[in-house]
Amino acid sequence: MADALKIGIAGLGTVGASLVRILQDRHETLATTCGRAIEITAVTARDRSKDRGVDLAGITWFDDAVSLASQGGIDVFVELMGGTGDPAYASVKAALTHGVHVVTANKALLAAHGIELAEIAEKHGALLNYEAAVAGGIPVIKALRESMTGNTISRVYGIMNGTCNYILTKMEKEGLSFEACLKEAQRLGYAEADPAFDIEGNDTAHKLSILTSLAFGTAIAADDIYLEGITNISIEDIQAAADLGYRIKLLGVAQRTESGIEQRVHPTMVPHDTVIAQVDGVTNAVAIESDILGELLMVGPGAGGDATASAVLGDIADIAKSRPGAQHVPAFGRPANALLPYKRARMQSHEGGYFIRLKVVDRTGVFANVAKQMADNDISLESIMQHSKHYADPAEPKTIILVTHATFEASVRKAIVSIKAEGYLVGEPQVIRIERPKAW
Amino acid sequence: MADALKIGIAGLGTVGASLVRILQDRHETLATTCGRAIEITAVTARDRSKDRGVDLAGITWFDDAVSLASQGGIDVFVELMGGTGDPAYASVKAALTHGVHVVTANKALLAAHGIELAEIAEKHGALLNYEAAVAGGIPVIKALRESMTGNTISRVYGIMNGTCNYILTKMEKEGLSFEACLKEAQRLGYAEADPAFDIEGNDTAHKLSILTSLAFGTAIAADDIYLEGITNISIEDIQAAADLGYRIKLLGVAQRTESGIEQRVHPTMVPHDTVIAQVDGVTNAVAIESDILGELLMVGPGAGGDATASAVLGDIADIAKSRPGAQHVPAFGRPANALLPYKRARMQSHEGGYFIRLKVVDRTGVFANVAKQMADNDISLESIMQHSKHYADPAEPKTIILVTHATFEASVRKAIVSIKAEGYLVGEPQVIRIERPKAW
Repeated sequence: MADALKIGIAGLGTVGASLVRILQDRHETLATTCGRAIEITAVTARDRSKDRGVDLAGITWFDDAVSLASQGGIDVFVELMGGTGDPAYASVKAALTHGVHVVTANKALLAAHGIELAEIAEKHGALLNYEAAVAGGIPVIKALRESMTGNTISRVYGIMNGTCNYILTKMEKEGLSFEACLKEAQRLGYAEADPAFDIEGNDTAHKLSILTSLAFGTAIAADDIYLEGITNISIEDIQAAADLGYRIKLLGVAQRTESGIEQRVHPTMVPHDTVIAQVDGVTNAVAIESDILGELLMVGPGAGGDATASAVLGDIADIAKSRPGAQHVPAFGRPANALLPYKRARMQSHEGGYFIRLKVVDRTGVFANVAKQMADNDISLESIMQHSKHYADPAEPKTIILVTHATFEASVRKAIVSIKAEGYLVGEPQVIRIERPKAW
Repeated sequence: MADALKIGIAGLGTVGASLVRILQDRHETLATTCGRAIEITAVTARDRSKDRGVDLAGITWFDDAVSLASQGGIDVFVELMGGTGDPAYASVKAALTHGVHVVTANKALLAAHGIELAEIAEKHGALLNYEAAVAGGIPVIKALRESMTGNTISRVYGIMNGTCNYILTKMEKEGLSFEACLKEAQRLGYAEADPAFDIEGNDTAHKLSILTSLAFGTAIAADDIYLEGITNISIEDIQAAADLGYRIKLLGVAQRTESGIEQRVHPTMVPHDTVIAQVDGVTNAVAIESDILGELLMVGPGAGGDATASAVLGDIADIAKSRPGAQHVPAFGRPANALLPYKRARMQSHEGGYFIRLKVVDRTGVFANVAKQMADNDISLESIMQHSKHYADPAEPKTIILVTHATFEASVRKAIVSIKAEGYLVGEPQVIRIERPKAW
């Protein structure tokens, strides 16, 4: 049997502690499977005295992640600290510079510095593995980076934030408000005390930027993403969607278009009878559409200590099964210097169906005027209806709900500007994009 | 850049021709991604003169697959001939014996000789990759063999035969008979002229035996599978299932139990609101339940020249990205000599819910007697109902439909023997097992 693979773990939170436990409990089985033992030889974390329920006896403690990465005598540096800044950034760089393989779950770091890190990794013959960074336990990185080699990808999209999907599912199933469901998510530990990063879509955007690079062979462009969170989604939207045969999901979508690549994160209506519409609660799902393989959908746990640790372990095992320096797996599918520049498709040129919900004053001719504004902007309607059932008082505003056929974002925005100018609108209109899976 | 990877392809049917086309069309991109070119240097097929719409100029033609495998001067032997016998068996053995890596889509060969071939591969430092052998384009082999390393799997199951799923979907959606849907499947090329291998469940069983080995670390036991095809499923079953909130799918299921491992292929009722129930037509789906990762479900194309070629290409690319002899990836997850013996759990001890449909003569007391026979065998019922709506003539037999809570196969069989002895049964009873996904 080959020499043991020596790993150093930086960060002993939920995922780190779970990983330590698994590597210790399954030491024998892993050695059999990988053809060599996997030994944790060094660790570092913020607080040495904290009890994490794991046995660190015989493992060298480092106070500093950079020292562990560069002078820890390890084969693999496992970065589970998180964050785009130091010590994560500095220590990952230090490891790669020393030819030490890196396994990380840090999507923010990759979104910010991924290409630079990939270049360093290649230069020093180190691997940069990050299956856990996107959609937790779902092996979507492996699918894109390895299984789908040679495929031309047309679209990749998914539910990649469990917090948002939990809230949207609960709103639909129990008819509760966004605020009430967010509180429940916080109580259950599915949402942070400061939930902005999740519910505003930033977390999904980080993950999407990584998938975009892998799918299209382009440099990561995490700042070039159209971003809309779920805070604006009301129970009325969810009910109207259900009436129309849709469910609302926060999707991250990257799509090849004639004018470039669209990257967008926004609440999305998906047809009720599709598989992705059935993905409920904290579960994640990622779909990939390509020209050779066709459509692939993967559903699984997107977060949680064990699921994330499983993905980290898979990355470590891949290194254990190969021999140091023996493999050529560029971090983002192709060598960093062969990645294409990211060419952003303008959101204005996005083409798709739209759900539009307007509150209008109850005046004769308004309904007809809304329809006319749509026609004037070349927007073809699948349906338009006036919802009055909820309103007992005739003086209250009425709700008009439109569903368009495929049209352009620019047209929809123009139509809404025109409608606003008419003066019959009450409050802001709600606009939700419709996404249609190619299959299922 | 490293030397080109030289591959030889044996078999130029739909998949082989598709692979040749893809490797030629995407030569540059593949070289960039893999860090080396992939060159087809040799091919063999039954009929040299046949026009396959691909350009074989400059590629050495072999009349004999064994010669190609052993004396073709190739790094990878791609076996796409199919069948358990020669030339597939002999040529794969010859390649591995010469240290030539093998990529195959041949599930039957692996089901019959997988462990022997894995041993030869290990002995000679060759890789045996077979992503395309199970569920076509779905990367389930990679998920089990690589991503889920270290996980203890409790159950793996799926829809792995497109022919059966197409027929069952069409029966449900259009209310047509099994025979009519089979004819339509044949017309569309989804079913063979002799469809027995698919509709009797053998194809699913072959695939399942491979997944079982990977999931549980056991030797392949393709003959130790409980097998029931879909020929016996009637439109009445499908409608009764729908009324009860279920859909009928042909599932292959491998499950760890206290007494061993269950391997079974049979028509199965799955709850209507689960993701796997939504998988329609020729699409495949595989779910894996494990202790660390949790539940993973993958949905995608299970067959077709391009989808299968994509999986074959992924396997070839994995070899191209590694350096020859540099990787330790045992074919079935752990070294062949470390695979555990397969211990079969008896079908009689299978525990689960059951759907039972009985035709009975219309006689007072029959309904009560059926209920009593169930109780006498300790079978707890979720529902029991008499379907009389379809029968205008009071002399016609009545239908009784039962759904049980979790019970044992042995109890159900015993109850049915008792019911048969009562003499009021018309024809054979229909028994369909119920499977509940752990999540979604």
